Amino acid sequence: MKRVYLDHIATTPLHSQALETMLPYLRENFGNPQSLHSPGQEALSALEQAREKVAELIHASPSEIIFTSTGSESNNFALKGLALAQRGRGEHLVVSAIEHQSVLHSVKSLEKWGFSTTLVPVDNKGLVDPEEVRKALRKDTILVSIMLASSEVGTVEPVAEIAKICRSQNVLFHTDAVAAVGNIPVDVKELEIDSLSLAGDQFYGPKGSAALFLKKGTRIFPFIEGGIQEGGRRAGTENVAGIVGLGKAAEIAKREMEARQKKIRPLRDRLIEGLLQKVEHVILTGHEEKRLPHHASFCIEFIEGEAMLLNLDMKGVAASSGSACTSRALKASHVLLAMGISHALAQGSLVFSLIEENEAADIDYLLEIFPPIIDRLRKMSPLYTKYLEERKK
Amino acid sequence: MKRVYLDHIATTPLHSQALETMLPYLRENFGNPQSLHSPGQEALSALEQAREKVAELIHASPSEIIFTSTGSESNNFALKGLALAQRGRGEHLVVSAIEHQSVLHSVKSLEKWGFSTTLVPVDNKGLVDPEEVRKALRKDTILVSIMLASSEVGTVEPVAEIAKICRSQNVLFHTDAVAAVGNIPVDVKELEIDSLSLAGDQFYGPKGSAALFLKKGTRIFPFIEGGIQEGGRRAGTENVAGIVGLGKAAEIAKREMEARQKKIRPLRDRLIEGLLQKVEHVILTGHEEKRLPHHASFCIEFIEGEAMLLNLDMKGVAASSGSACTSRALKASHVLLAMGISHALAQGSLVFSLIEENEAADIDYLLEIFPPIIDRLRKMSPLYTKYLEERKK
Repeated sequence: MKRVYLDHIATTPLHSQALETMLPYLRENFGNPQSLHSPGQEALSALEQAREKVAELIHASPSEIIFTSTGSESNNFALKGLALAQRGRGEHLVVSAIEHQSVLHSVKSLEKWGFSTTLVPVDNKGLVDPEEVRKALRKDTILVSIMLASSEVGTVEPVAEIAKICRSQNVLFHTDAVAAVGNIPVDVKELEIDSLSLAGDQFYGPKGSAALFLKKGTRIFPFIEGGIQEGGRRAGTENVAGIVGLGKAAEIAKREMEARQKKIRPLRDRLIEGLLQKVEHVILTGHEEKRLPHHASFCIEFIEGEAMLLNLDMKGVAASSGSACTSRALKASHVLLAMGISHALAQGSLVFSLIEENEAADIDYLLEIFPPIIDRLRKMSPLYTKYLEERKK
Repeated sequence: MKRVYLDHIATTPLHSQALETMLPYLRENFGNPQSLHSPGQEALSALEQAREKVAELIHASPSEIIFTSTGSESNNFALKGLALAQRGRGEHLVVSAIEHQSVLHSVKSLEKWGFSTTLVPVDNKGLVDPEEVRKALRKDTILVSIMLASSEVGTVEPVAEIAKICRSQNVLFHTDAVAAVGNIPVDVKELEIDSLSLAGDQFYGPKGSAALFLKKGTRIFPFIEGGIQEGGRRAGTENVAGIVGLGKAAEIAKREMEARQKKIRPLRDRLIEGLLQKVEHVILTGHEEKRLPHHASFCIEFIEGEAMLLNLDMKGVAASSGSACTSRALKASHVLLAMGISHALAQGSLVFSLIEENEAADIDYLLEIFPPIIDRLRKMSPLYTKYLEERKK
């Protein structure tokens, strides 16, 4: 059976060059970077080289990169660590309604500890209006967190404008850039943001390796406390091989981002056009232009996302119905609901996200097998039957 | 140059069989375990197999294993998560004075949030007296945390007795077993403990892969919040390859623990005897019998640990002067100070910890090169000169 992986947003494969770079650190160079002896020093040197590469990808200084295990850890660290460190100045937070659960749940915990939050709405394309952020700011606002791009609907947010507003009000700004970094250009200097989350497995790096960018001089409470790793900001023995792989993936992403986009974007457009043409009762979710180049997301009426995923899987196609972090929760996506999409329609959420290995034949294959799947599922759908009956009247 | 790695407590090499098991998950089986499609399901199945193996190593149920990134994360998670979940019942914690920094710093943070702590002392062998724990318990005590074994002095604590006392008082008991699990038999059912931290890179598993055992039914606040991974208790995309490697290392440890001990223990004893015989002004730190089988720790008078480490390294020997998590802090170990060792003597801390690859020739080599190093360093030591002068009088 043909196998077509269209689930970049869940995770990407590990780049073969990244794996090659990791292997020595999974074999002979196994030292602990905190050890003073040569095996330790070799590991430390690899760690610092990786730090430079990750910093270069987002135009940061190496000392501004803190390695973590996942994007979720980075978001927890940023939200909780920044809020607690700023507590003397106020206890009000501002986040968008479509943030990742790791941001929203962190905020919920902070609320239990006395903080309060304003949720900024999004429009029907998933866009945050910077003016809405400005309106949400209060005298006691200490931190704003708005994602750079949505993994669920692909929309790229106007983070530079939002960061500027926060800066003018002396409020810290964090962005969850897990879906963006490595896939579109991200320049923390240009954006002038205070902190940013990224994760290796979103750009052909290994799982278990992520980072938090933290602007020099920004106070943060450590999240994982203990040893003096990462400048005392993230305790625990470093995942050396994972970090080395993250560094290599960052280096490759910087070099190949444009070429990847040039290859993937037309395929993605072909997918969107083909699907909208070949299947009835489908809407593209998210913004038409301001979206991740590898991302195509839809709501397909009268059918549940899971049924589509399983039927696609039987034909060898891997897709997703939203964030992998909540896919098994089988709840309508809070992102789609915040965009004003109805509960019923949100159940038909489907995301195709391309990886660099995809070819035109993959998209053609999807466009060939998908319409019959839709037809079959709709024939079994009581909602669709009801719709047809009502149309007859 | 001969290379002799005697720094097990900093980290072990990755077992070649563990790496072999990981490789498919770093190559073709790259799916996200939360994805509903086949690549995701394959990853999920690998994850659950690893969970079974880790559970078997410590006689837990698979559902009692929560994968984390490091032992430090597991300790932060346990201390903060259990204390916050139990807060309604009281705000008093009991920990030993020789706990790892990830425990002690977590407790410090909890104190900022209103909790109070009693530090239980240890004797000059690093042993906690269970009666001291009993005395420290108050009506509002909700959590006791005592390590299973010390990575710095090797002492194995009477955790079963301490857990029994806690249970009788209806107080939760956590043990940091990072230095112990995989190296000595640990049976959570027999110990009847509520939670336990372990880390793969302490028994030939990969760095970046660790776990928290949490007894069924024990309430805990999630630490890394967000998605529904690990039953909603630890959010973030799972480090599948790392977890698979941890599982394999657990399986191997269970099978080979006895054979490893049989090989390593006599070498370790040879090291201790040889060193005490060949070098003057040396004490063995920690307990003579109740200690990790691969562990030999000393305080060497008149010399600083760092100088010894660097000189050993020049001869190809990797050792440590204590916990890798604090080695660069260049402070006297809080563990040694708590054992009543003087500040000056504690500076001469040196830990040799064996890995299964070590042979008798490695120990002989160490015993050959080490005394001349000591002699040379002592000749440069003002403290030693002073000692010699005073002895003359």
